Amino acid sequence: MKNPLYIPVVAIVGVGLIGGSFALALKEAGVVGRILGFDLDPHNLAQALQLGIIDAACHGPEELSEADLIFLATPVLAMPAALTAISPYLKAGAILTDGGSVKGAVIAALEPLLPPTLRYVPGHPISGTERSGATAAFSSLYRGKRCILTPTKRSDPQAIALVTALWQAAGSEVMLMDAEKHDRILAAISHLPHMVAYALVNAVGAYDRYEENILLYSAGGFRDFTRIASSDPTMWRDIALTNREALLEMIERFESDLSGLKEAIRRGDAAMLHDYFLRSKLNRDAIL
Amino acid sequence: MKNPLYIPVVAIVGVGLIGGSFALALKEAGVVGRILGFDLDPHNLAQALQLGIIDAACHGPEELSEADLIFLATPVLAMPAALTAISPYLKAGAILTDGGSVKGAVIAALEPLLPPTLRYVPGHPISGTERSGATAAFSSLYRGKRCILTPTKRSDPQAIALVTALWQAAGSEVMLMDAEKHDRILAAISHLPHMVAYALVNAVGAYDRYEENILLYSAGGFRDFTRIASSDPTMWRDIALTNREALLEMIERFESDLSGLKEAIRRGDAAMLHDYFLRSKLNRDAIL
Repeated sequence: MKNPLYIPVVAIVGVGLIGGSFALALKEAGVVGRILGFDLDPHNLAQALQLGIIDAACHGPEELSEADLIFLATPVLAMPAALTAISPYLKAGAILTDGGSVKGAVIAALEPLLPPTLRYVPGHPISGTERSGATAAFSSLYRGKRCILTPTKRSDPQAIALVTALWQAAGSEVMLMDAEKHDRILAAISHLPHMVAYALVNAVGAYDRYEENILLYSAGGFRDFTRIASSDPTMWRDIALTNREALLEMIERFESDLSGLKEAIRRGDAAMLHDYFLRSKLNRDAIL
Repeated sequence: MKNPLYIPVVAIVGVGLIGGSFALALKEAGVVGRILGFDLDPHNLAQALQLGIIDAACHGPEELSEADLIFLATPVLAMPAALTAISPYLKAGAILTDGGSVKGAVIAALEPLLPPTLRYVPGHPISGTERSGATAAFSSLYRGKRCILTPTKRSDPQAIALVTALWQAAGSEVMLMDAEKHDRILAAISHLPHMVAYALVNAVGAYDRYEENILLYSAGGFRDFTRIASSDPTMWRDIALTNREALLEMIERFESDLSGLKEAIRRGDAAMLHDYFLRSKLNRDAIL
């Protein structure tokens, strides 16, 4: 007996950590018949097939014509080209969704490219690890996490309901919001921390070259704190380019906060320092 | 049969995460007879006794007169007052060591206060968690970690050897270096990351108040990345005040790096962004 939620054919375009984990989660939930994979990197695609993440590797966009649902999980700046390549072959009524970490720019780029018969539900699962590629995928990546959908005026209600149900089947809590709010929130809680971690590792790394093997002394704290600086450079280049305004605003808020802290250190302001660290601890402990 | 390394009486002054874990590690290694505890906070001291971290709670400095080795593990700015309080009662030939995260300022403050018969070996175990107090202590905190000793001209070679052996018994690898180098290295790999994490949480927290519950959306990445911002505010106030010059230098290096990244985002420099994130990933992966 089939699960009442059942999609005969799902296509994953970009079978990396995000796309591959979605495939594995849907398989585990028993809500999909067959999973097709499509990827610019033939080696990654072969690995996805070998690992059982996908059931068939497509070697051209025409092989996606059976897909009922297409999950676009490439770096965000690769999405328009991917959509342009596959859209002529997609069947009428198919549903396109994506996993891009930025929503405003992705919607603005993809909507003009959509054939009228393709239904589009923009999305973003808020989870990931610092690893990338098909070999990094695992079925429980989305379990207990949030997935944000940012439907547009032209998103079909049935399509929204189906994509919602799929993410729920993958174990996520689904929230709907508008793309602009999504992008501001993600700039604060994800994009800014990544920029800070990248800058921290590079600043300490540069000092390291001056000092000799300084990173050898680092305890678990530094390693944990900078874990996210190992994330995929192409993915983050694209996020930095496409969520530019919200990210620049958050970087400047952070710079201003750090500058105030630096001045308190410079003038030896013990009371302000204690208050600052305590406020941060209370903020942080509240989200444990 | 006793371990060849054996200290009849050890006193822990400041029985928190650092002092308490040292006590537990020495007990587990079987290298100590009796452990005395002394703490400004009577509730914390009672907890340490109840948890079996210490064998006796001292209620006045005169009760430390039996100690062969004293481990000073208070926040660094509390160390001079603690030493002044206990030094009249310590027996001749006793060894004092400390666990302060800053060494130059601690040595400068403590050495003038040392009675001629007290031998002092400055130290810093490079490990910790974001928790604090006796209840946070555990015996394996120092296992597989580094401990840096920064002996001064007046540190006695036998005392250095004994303190080294104790940290080795606690599971740490011991390194000797001069205090100024220690302070520059720790400013880079520990003190700067803590300042950055504190500033990040406060910047996002302030934005949160504007935006409503933004932190609710944060995935594991933000929580992991900001874990160290839950560390003890008094400890970090003291570190920021006492390692000021090295820390300000590192904050400025970091600000300069982040500013370069921000400008690359502002002008949409895709090549530089990819190169920057890749360099950071390679730096980070090298210390995994």
